[in-house]
Amino acid sequence: MPDELIAIPARSGKAAFVTRGQTVKVINTHGEQVVDTWAFSRADLTEFMSMEHSRAGIQRLIPAVGDAMLTNRRRPILTLLEDTSGGIHDTLMAACDVYRYQRLGCDGYHDNCTDNLAQAMRNIGLAPPETPSPLNLFMNIPWTADGMLSFEPPVSTPGSYVLLRAEMDLAIAFSACPQDVLPINGIGRTPTEAHFALA
Amino acid sequence: MPDELIAIPARSGKAAFVTRGQTVKVINTHGEQVVDTWAFSRADLTEFMSMEHSRAGIQRLIPAVGDAMLTNRRRPILTLLEDTSGGIHDTLMAACDVYRYQRLGCDGYHDNCTDNLAQAMRNIGLAPPETPSPLNLFMNIPWTADGMLSFEPPVSTPGSYVLLRAEMDLAIAFSACPQDVLPINGIGRTPTEAHFALA
Repeated sequence: MPDELIAIPARSGKAAFVTRGQTVKVINTHGEQVVDTWAFSRADLTEFMSMEHSRAGIQRLIPAVGDAMLTNRRRPILTLLEDTSGGIHDTLMAACDVYRYQRLGCDGYHDNCTDNLAQAMRNIGLAPPETPSPLNLFMNIPWTADGMLSFEPPVSTPGSYVLLRAEMDLAIAFSACPQDVLPINGIGRTPTEAHFALA
Repeated sequence: MPDELIAIPARSGKAAFVTRGQTVKVINTHGEQVVDTWAFSRADLTEFMSMEHSRAGIQRLIPAVGDAMLTNRRRPILTLLEDTSGGIHDTLMAACDVYRYQRLGCDGYHDNCTDNLAQAMRNIGLAPPETPSPLNLFMNIPWTADGMLSFEPPVSTPGSYVLLRAEMDLAIAFSACPQDVLPINGIGRTPTEAHFALA
């Protein structure tokens, strides 16, 4: 029986509880959607997946299959078990927020991953203690030898996925990034839904 | 008249208030000392210099002369005006903490930059709302084309410095990193003092 797919609606967030040892498959349903991803310990929400602690632990800019992402207390929280997406993700960029879209010239409110995180967590009865820097699945931020960074379209394909294993009881939260000014969700700049499944 | 030098004692932290428009010269006195650096808005300590927001703004892994580091609300907070140190700094690695030294095999308490930040802020009557990922001045974390990272000795020389301009009223905090297991403070693994001066 296939796992039940849970939608992360376009431009929106979605969170769920995951038990230690369960897996989470995050699917790039339409192939070009960045999915900002956070994980918080169920036992204490102030312990959460941290990009800056993970990079020190894995000594890579992007996690590879077999790598365990670490919390801000340096404990494994999510291990990358499989990746059919091409292996390009981002650990460098903050979640987008109202200030980002103001700087990009948008008038008025723009959906953003920071607010999506808060809303998704509220929907399962939680409040994030802060907005940790997210694991930006499928996001393509290449670097050069001299450290220049750019915002590029994903290399992933429709239906490709990453499989993560929970190393503690946790709340996982996703945002299907609403970025439609830069081409990080494809050159069509059209955010789409994505999906995940727990097993 | 030369600026008054303020010591950041070896393995310790030091904080100071800085007014918008003032400059802060951070001096690598003995040449091989990493200086973790944080900045918090005086008006609201929950607004602070953020590596993940800064990287999105400057589109570099390491700030270059002329770059403005951004807060978590995407406002300029510190601009890099001069750099005689060789231009190698780090924005990728979390401040060291008790968990880091436990993982590195240390028994008992080890001085660490996270606790140094808290102590330095307490000494000027403030409490940091969290431990933001620091700007690790003089820290040498090279990356490869395929994203591998390593912990290497600084390339800076005795007396070399960076000059920063405050873009808002702020509290700046430093930690002379007490790392003595990895060679990031030189192959001698001997943390030293550093200095700063306000003008």
